[in-house]
Amino acid sequence: MIFASDNWAGAHPAIADSLARAAAGHAPAYGSSDLDKAVEARFNAIFEREVAVFFVGTGTAANALALAAVNRPGGISFCHRLAHMIEDECGAPEYLTGGARLCPVDGPLGRFGVEALERELDRYPPDFVHAGQPMAVSITQATEAGTVYRLDEIAAIAATCRSRGLPLHMDGARFANALVALDATPAEMTWKAGVDIVSFGGTKNGCWCAEAVVFLDPARAREFPFVRKRAAQLFSKSRFIAAQFDAYFENGLWLDLAAHANAMTRRLADIVRGAPGMRLGWEPEANELFAIMTVSRAEALRALGARFHDWNVPSGLAASVAPGESLYRFVTSFATTENELTLIKQTSYIV
Amino acid sequence: MIFASDNWAGAHPAIADSLARAAAGHAPAYGSSDLDKAVEARFNAIFEREVAVFFVGTGTAANALALAAVNRPGGISFCHRLAHMIEDECGAPEYLTGGARLCPVDGPLGRFGVEALERELDRYPPDFVHAGQPMAVSITQATEAGTVYRLDEIAAIAATCRSRGLPLHMDGARFANALVALDATPAEMTWKAGVDIVSFGGTKNGCWCAEAVVFLDPARAREFPFVRKRAAQLFSKSRFIAAQFDAYFENGLWLDLAAHANAMTRRLADIVRGAPGMRLGWEPEANELFAIMTVSRAEALRALGARFHDWNVPSGLAASVAPGESLYRFVTSFATTENELTLIKQTSYIV
Amino acid sequence: MIFASDNWAGAHPAIADSLARAAAGHAPAYGSSDLDKAVEARFNAIFEREVAVFFVGTGTAANALALAAVNRPGGISFCHRLAHMIEDECGAPEYLTGGARLCPVDGPLGRFGVEALERELDRYPPDFVHAGQPMAVSITQATEAGTVYRLDEIAAIAATCRSRGLPLHMDGARFANALVALDATPAEMTWKAGVDIVSFGGTKNGCWCAEAVVFLDPARAREFPFVRKRAAQLFSKSRFIAAQFDAYFENGLWLDLAAHANAMTRRLADIVRGAPGMRLGWEPEANELFAIMTVSRAEALRALGARFHDWNVPSGLAASVAPGESLYRFVTSFATTENELTLIKQTSYIV
Amino acid sequence: MIFASDNWAGAHPAIADSLARAAAGHAPAYGSSDLDKAVEARFNAIFEREVAVFFVGTGTAANALALAAVNRPGGISFCHRLAHMIEDECGAPEYLTGGARLCPVDGPLGRFGVEALERELDRYPPDFVHAGQPMAVSITQATEAGTVYRLDEIAAIAATCRSRGLPLHMDGARFANALVALDATPAEMTWKAGVDIVSFGGTKNGCWCAEAVVFLDPARAREFPFVRKRAAQLFSKSRFIAAQFDAYFENGLWLDLAAHANAMTRRLADIVRGAPGMRLGWEPEANELFAIMTVSRAEALRALGARFHDWNVPSGLAASVAPGESLYRFVTSFATTENELTLIKQTSYIV
Repeated sequence: MIFASDNWAGAHPAIADSLARAAAGHAPAYGSSDLDKAVEARFNAIFEREVAVFFVGTGTAANALALAAVNRPGGISFCHRLAHMIEDECGAPEYLTGGARLCPVDGPLGRFGVEALERELDRYPPDFVHAGQPMAVSITQATEAGTVYRLDEIAAIAATCRSRGLPLHMDGARFANALVALDATPAEMTWKAGVDIVSFGGTKNGCWCAEAVVFLDPARAREFPFVRKRAAQLFSKSRFIAAQFDAYFENGLWLDLAAHANAMTRRLADIVRGAPGMRLGWEPEANELFAIMTVSRAEALRALGARFHDWNVPSGLAASVAPGESLYRFVTSFATTENELTLIKQTSYIV
Repeated sequence: MIFASDNWAGAHPAIADSLARAAAGHAPAYGSSDLDKAVEARFNAIFEREVAVFFVGTGTAANALALAAVNRPGGISFCHRLAHMIEDECGAPEYLTGGARLCPVDGPLGRFGVEALERELDRYPPDFVHAGQPMAVSITQATEAGTVYRLDEIAAIAATCRSRGLPLHMDGARFANALVALDATPAEMTWKAGVDIVSFGGTKNGCWCAEAVVFLDPARAREFPFVRKRAAQLFSKSRFIAAQFDAYFENGLWLDLAAHANAMTRRLADIVRGAPGMRLGWEPEANELFAIMTVSRAEALRALGARFHDWNVPSGLAASVAPGESLYRFVTSFATTENELTLIKQTSYIV
Repeated sequence: MIFASDNWAGAHPAIADSLARAAAGHAPAYGSSDLDKAVEARFNAIFEREVAVFFVGTGTAANALALAAVNRPGGISFCHRLAHMIEDECGAPEYLTGGARLCPVDGPLGRFGVEALERELDRYPPDFVHAGQPMAVSITQATEAGTVYRLDEIAAIAATCRSRGLPLHMDGARFANALVALDATPAEMTWKAGVDIVSFGGTKNGCWCAEAVVFLDPARAREFPFVRKRAAQLFSKSRFIAAQFDAYFENGLWLDLAAHANAMTRRLADIVRGAPGMRLGWEPEANELFAIMTVSRAEALRALGARFHDWNVPSGLAASVAPGESLYRFVTSFATTENELTLIKQTSYIV
Repeated sequence: MIFASDNWAGAHPAIADSLARAAAGHAPAYGSSDLDKAVEARFNAIFEREVAVFFVGTGTAANALALAAVNRPGGISFCHRLAHMIEDECGAPEYLTGGARLCPVDGPLGRFGVEALERELDRYPPDFVHAGQPMAVSITQATEAGTVYRLDEIAAIAATCRSRGLPLHMDGARFANALVALDATPAEMTWKAGVDIVSFGGTKNGCWCAEAVVFLDPARAREFPFVRKRAAQLFSKSRFIAAQFDAYFENGLWLDLAAHANAMTRRLADIVRGAPGMRLGWEPEANELFAIMTVSRAEALRALGARFHDWNVPSGLAASVAPGESLYRFVTSFATTENELTLIKQTSYIV
């Protein structure tokens, strides 16, 4: 009953196998092997255009270096108040940009809209040197609240970015989960909607350690080889990441894994809706679910072996959480089993 | 006949197996799993004392963050002119320290002595604010020239460091090769000789991606969790590094692999000594060999499939390299085979 | 009728004279002249203890380098949401700390209390590496809202800092105005209340360019000479700052100038209270006054030559600003004349 | 007998007067005053084209921010081994560029030639990510050795820069002294020869604190307002720098002052040539003179009140410095008097 995070899972067997296969033999280092090149071609195919792909080791690296790639003096990037970049990266985006700032944008359920974004952007008039200058907008897809931006919402944000000359970055730590949720193609969810740079995550969806910065327009990536190397994110045996992505994309495995994870969350939502003393904080849209229950019930579930995280109650939800209750996050992954769901269902009746 | 670099090899089968085994099941993320803890205990055992171990993704990260851990304003670190930190890290040490400088120290065959070190240190009188201030000394073991510092040489450098209040860092990208070459223990080669921080490399010796920063005195590491996370080097599925190190240390595999690599270099040295038109630049001491031959011979060997790098002729050697000749680097690894050596031997007679 | 900012004034004649006097003759550079030393001694006398004083060129430099002096990896400094460091320094604090973050703390009228501070601090549990770690607390005195922290309020914030092991910084761009408002001594307003580092501003109170970072405990300042020089804030002809401070402190000139500026604001407050169609946003406590009036009235005043800035209406005040009205900031300085006040009074009747 | 440095002088009376005159009255802050604008126009006139001028507080700031303006990831700037940026700025260029490196170029008497520059540039092949990438070339004019690049030498270096796509920066801390020495115009010594950015120094030539970054092509300066402000180098009462430059340029004062300083050095050279036991290290070309004498003679001169600095003997000169002798630097300035020279002459006979 592990719902703590999708990064508590290990690696999918097909990915582990791919690593074992790639282990033999020699290959040029630093991303120039045949396997590296083949996986880069896979990215082109998946995005239906030539893209520039750079493997990195962590999602935090992908996010921070994506910003470093568009860095400006006094630069400010705009992202949701709950964004991983603000909440969970120990200042890596600031550090790796040499001090560029993150400006929180508010919005319900992990998403912000154009209006809120423009309100923040308007605080930084061009050439007003004291306040600094906007340099990028970032959205998380799927969001930290387990919701998903619709394609038209992305396009609207991208239009604002374009009108202000700002690149639009997508933190795709759960890119596949969003894609499956929207039943969209990678092209539709990114460049066709106006996204410029993607932090493309494989780790949370069945890889060990496979993240990439994807520039939808390769021209933007001209200096990125130096950005990555300087940040100590160029791996000598780079093909160990390539081998993971290779299996990840083979026969659509990545989408299958995300579909499974999302389905497990939907099933869990059904259980929560039906269980006594539990209810949904809001409707889940990908592979994260937020449930309200009493603290004592949560403790009892944990005593029976369930693992899930406490979560801050968003201000908009505060009124619907009674005294003694709290909010909890459940995350499903490729590795979540029916059996784990059944156990949650059963224990929710026991406790 | 791949002698380009020890990072052209893949992963040792036992390490690939360990990854496959660890792939199943869930475990807490970010280094708190049982496996992570068990491998940390292995490091304590290997170093014969409690150490603070932090896994990172690349040797460059280990080096740069080791310096970041001892950073000072206007800080200057002293390392050999040929050090990987100076020559091959695209400025990562400077970047990740926010601009601390690397001061090259000269010395023959990749090593510097106390006298040369003190000459450089003396250029920075305490409190002379214009020049900046020393903050660390770093040695590479085994060196970039394939040589190895003897224990008494390390101790002498450490004594200088101590007298100046400077920490001594060891870039141990080829730590195991040096250890085997010296027939020393990790404790002897580090803290017993006065080393404070080690970049402990596994990648070049049979791992996919397994590097660690080891603080011989854990008290120095108090802020390092933040140093690492801020630099995007904390892996969510950290146990994929732990699983590699676990197999690496099991039954002394790491020492066996290094012993093999070193033996292959010794055998290659015999071949070079005996081959017509080839000679050693200097005696190899670990798993790197530098050979002088004519450019045309090198091209012929490469045409037959051999892979090895051109190398800059050190000034001390310039007189012994004739016109038309050049210097080449050959690196052996755990994956180098007898057969590859035999082929080099045969082709050296052909070309 | 210049009320735009106290930095629109030039320099007080006594300070200009001091510069002219110091211009002759030679003196050792970089802060080692007799005059530099004499002014350092003045600081000791003023603070009634030995302090470490470092002249810098701008208030932004003083603030940012004060934070750089206490920098930590993943570090977060806490200051009021309206603090100059957040609103007006183009990211200098983040830049010069290599990416440390500023966390806004809320509170009415430019001040925050212990409760609000602790609420923010509690969001960063020790050792929770993802969120980063607190590294400093900063208050502005007098505040950006023209109010002043009382001594017991400072002491309460300092107690929180001490209990968390955090240094307390005071942005004293208007230090003298606050001092005069409180009728306190520099010692009482700083180290006796628990302040550790002060950005000591002279520029807004009659100097051309005279700012200093003052460490109340010199032991904290050991590395600061390098912090300052590395940031390009060590002036070769440093005595041109010393000469300004020398005149500034002579016979209490600095307190007289601040007293004048504060008195002018009190007089202006009387005028605003009595003028038709104008009212105070809140009671001024130092040399800044915030007035509510109609936009058309403001335009009319400006057409008659008055200079003052538009100001964002704080959320707590929103209800009391009618449609068509807005908030405006008036700043008085050592150079504000009775005549200017009279003109404001007269024009407020005309428009 | 003060020959320690040209920054031991105070300010020229005309400049002190200008400051006193500017002290009265109010003016918009942060560089937008009429005086600021007028001085910017003076720069255009002096350079015979529209330039972008940014006042900063120190020469170190000018140099470091000029590099920050052309910063690249993994960037390397090439300057003479003795350059102030390498030797005397405590790592400010590295710090304010977030870690860009300075690569020393060798050459006799403080100048390097095209051949030496290209040798260093060739070490960084395009796209070789491990070594980093060239980002700028910087020359000092007049050099730290008191010599001056001829116009054709500058043009040759500029041609190399252009062929490699690199901007050419000139550290003009002693710009006026070089100009006078060459009898050239500012246009000839900069953009007509191919210089892109100048650190324009006034401090060493009679100002208190007046430095500027001058972009010969304003298009390069688009983001520089943020570069400067973020580095805490935008002065609120910016006109105090403008007032200095205003007097500095009035009626060619700056050239007169530099001509005086250079003439004093020429006179001092005559004295050194004629004095027993002293000789020139090399011919001075601007306002710095390097003399060889016995250590005991230097001590005797100092005992009589002379101030001058010890200097490292350049390797090319080592053979001509006898045991017991050493090298000393004498700097003259606008404030050097005939009387001081006479005293040096007299004492050189006494000691």
